[in-house]
Amino acid sequence: MSRQRRGEETRLRILQAAEACFAQNGYDATSVAEICKHAGLSKGAFYHHFSSKQALFIELLNRWLENLDMQFESARTEAKDVPEGLFRMAEMTGSIFQEASGQFPILFEFWVQAVRDPQIWKAAIAPYHRYRAFFSQMIKAGISEGSLRPVDPDLTAQVLVSLAVGLLLQGSLDPDGADWAGVVQDSIKMLLRDLER
Amino acid sequence: MSRQRRGEETRLRILQAAEACFAQNGYDATSVAEICKHAGLSKGAFYHHFSSKQALFIELLNRWLENLDMQFESARTEAKDVPEGLFRMAEMTGSIFQEASGQFPILFEFWVQAVRDPQIWKAAIAPYHRYRAFFSQMIKAGISEGSLRPVDPDLTAQVLVSLAVGLLLQGSLDPDGADWAGVVQDSIKMLLRDLER
Repeated sequence: MSRQRRGEETRLRILQAAEACFAQNGYDATSVAEICKHAGLSKGAFYHHFSSKQALFIELLNRWLENLDMQFESARTEAKDVPEGLFRMAEMTGSIFQEASGQFPILFEFWVQAVRDPQIWKAAIAPYHRYRAFFSQMIKAGISEGSLRPVDPDLTAQVLVSLAVGLLLQGSLDPDGADWAGVVQDSIKMLLRDLER
Repeated sequence: MSRQRRGEETRLRILQAAEACFAQNGYDATSVAEICKHAGLSKGAFYHHFSSKQALFIELLNRWLENLDMQFESARTEAKDVPEGLFRMAEMTGSIFQEASGQFPILFEFWVQAVRDPQIWKAAIAPYHRYRAFFSQMIKAGISEGSLRPVDPDLTAQVLVSLAVGLLLQGSLDPDGADWAGVVQDSIKMLLRDLER
């Protein structure tokens, strides 16, 4: 095994150990020492890969979002038009909710940290801006291809992102309170009825 | 001054002191001792009014929401029809954002607590259910009076609440990232265009 590959495997082992520890005890209550113990590694190995628990957490979040981005990209390219692409993304959200449900409490802690720490704040804010830009682009493409009415792309993107964030929050606080996957799909259908030409 | 009124004033002084301490140092980092010091009261006085910091926090949240409920109720009764009522509520949200912006970080901490503590969880979940029921009723009234199309009231209420929660979250993380009051109004206008008969 190459040195580089071994390095990547150690990195992944730390990330997975951290994910497990955070899910069980929360972000604040988890120490670097515990993550190392769980991963079967020394602190030296940890700090070779991550400068801090905070840096590790930001990488966890970014990996999770990269995965989501890839799914969204493929939904967009495989769909025949923008409304179908949006609806496919809504369908995916069902599995996203299930996969990620254990991670949501960590997201709340992340927000608490974000309010107090400028570096975490930047990492917490970035995805919102990115998804707003992504959906705004997509709405513009829909208007160009003639599948959507000439709505305001930025406002519509903001509504989509806000709706998704609101559903994510309620779904993570109250997983049994509704059929969240169904609600996501029905909400998007409702919005699309207004948006489609 | 009657004994009852003096009691109510002490209670209010504790609540205001707690609000100030939470806003400055966060929920976790604030002790009952600090709240007492800030309020100029003994711990005995505190525990005469609240069984715990947690109970105090739930009352803070409920008072804030009662205030919101009253504003919503008056918007609803003063408007000539349901669409106008909904739009008035959206207009209010601007001032709500401003008034409450210092409180949002505490809300995140509250959610972190809610995931770990069943009693806080119940208090955190209740408002979502209440607002969903409130808006569902309102949508039904709009359909009855003929101002709204015969949409699914529960789904529409869920969309409204989710959108509001998502905007609240983004607005509190990133107050300067958008004209949030304007976004709320424009989003509701967009939804209303689809809902109105």
